[in-house]
Amino acid sequence: MQTEKIILGIDPGTTIMGFGMLHVEQEEMRLLYLDEIHFEKLSDHSLKLKRIFERTLGIIDAYKPDELAIEAPFYGKNAQSMLKLGRAQGVAMAAGLYREIPITEYPPKKVKMAITGNGNASKGQVAGMLQHLLQVEALPERFDATDGLAVAVCHHFNAGKAKTRRNYRSWNAFLKENPERKG
Amino acid sequence: MQTEKIILGIDPGTTIMGFGMLHVEQEEMRLLYLDEIHFEKLSDHSLKLKRIFERTLGIIDAYKPDELAIEAPFYGKNAQSMLKLGRAQGVAMAAGLYREIPITEYPPKKVKMAITGNGNASKGQVAGMLQHLLQVEALPERFDATDGLAVAVCHHFNAGKAKTRRNYRSWNAFLKENPERKG
Repeated sequence: MQTEKIILGIDPGTTIMGFGMLHVEQEEMRLLYLDEIHFEKLSDHSLKLKRIFERTLGIIDAYKPDELAIEAPFYGKNAQSMLKLGRAQGVAMAAGLYREIPITEYPPKKVKMAITGNGNASKGQVAGMLQHLLQVEALPERFDATDGLAVAVCHHFNAGKAKTRRNYRSWNAFLKENPERKG
Repeated sequence: MQTEKIILGIDPGTTIMGFGMLHVEQEEMRLLYLDEIHFEKLSDHSLKLKRIFERTLGIIDAYKPDELAIEAPFYGKNAQSMLKLGRAQGVAMAAGLYREIPITEYPPKKVKMAITGNGNASKGQVAGMLQHLLQVEALPERFDATDGLAVAVCHHFNAGKAKTRRNYRSWNAFLKENPERKG
């Protein structure tokens, strides 16, 4: 079993993208990198996608993560915004796929559950728990960045548990099998 | 003004992706490449995205197109399928963005209108008109491939017309300005 690895967690959005990088050694987690990229100022959708691809690839090439974890909602109400979100996700994933890095997706509720034991925890609660888990004095109040970090930690927690390390298709099945599961 | 260029048209789907490559010189169009990639056999979504990225990048590197044109629907009913479609589009676009090739998107109705003069033309009618325009004896009955070719031809037709060469945001505005426009 690999005793050391680097995990990049991404919370991909169409206006802000959060990144959190984790170094794991002998089950000990250490924060390597935490950042947000803002795209509000880019009015052109194609330019936004280009920027997402370049920045994601840049971060990957700088830190060489072994695994990628992505927070990905699987349903939404507005089809058009889901198409845009899908594109942003696809472009970020392409950067990882291009570098042959395995990608695992986690729905937001599962991430919150893994970190706090509560699938409906607030972003502040998630950030507070991450601060405790990573033993850092403070995390910036940039919740897209901490969301990215949260999915990296969630991925680490799930790495040893075959039953929960699944993609979203079987996550629904898992919920059906475990209707009362809260943490 | 550039007198010679290569246009790659892509019809991106989650199970089949159509590609059509066009060589344009002195307004004369010539078919360079026409193909479909099928992903039905790949059950893993992440593997599908990887394959889309690799194949698109491979075709780009083989033919070195100057411009990319993508057929892109802008709304659908099912949010989940739009997310998946968005990812497939995003991954294909990332391949173009990575090679710094400008991308223009066209809604399906606009493509049909540009080729046949009728925004509701059938795929067979579009293929028949492409055959005539490109002076080829026959096109294979692979409508995802011919859809990819159609968007390349549409892009060429629109290259000289600033008013219609727009992205989807202003296409809606254009339709509002031209409610009776049929071809």
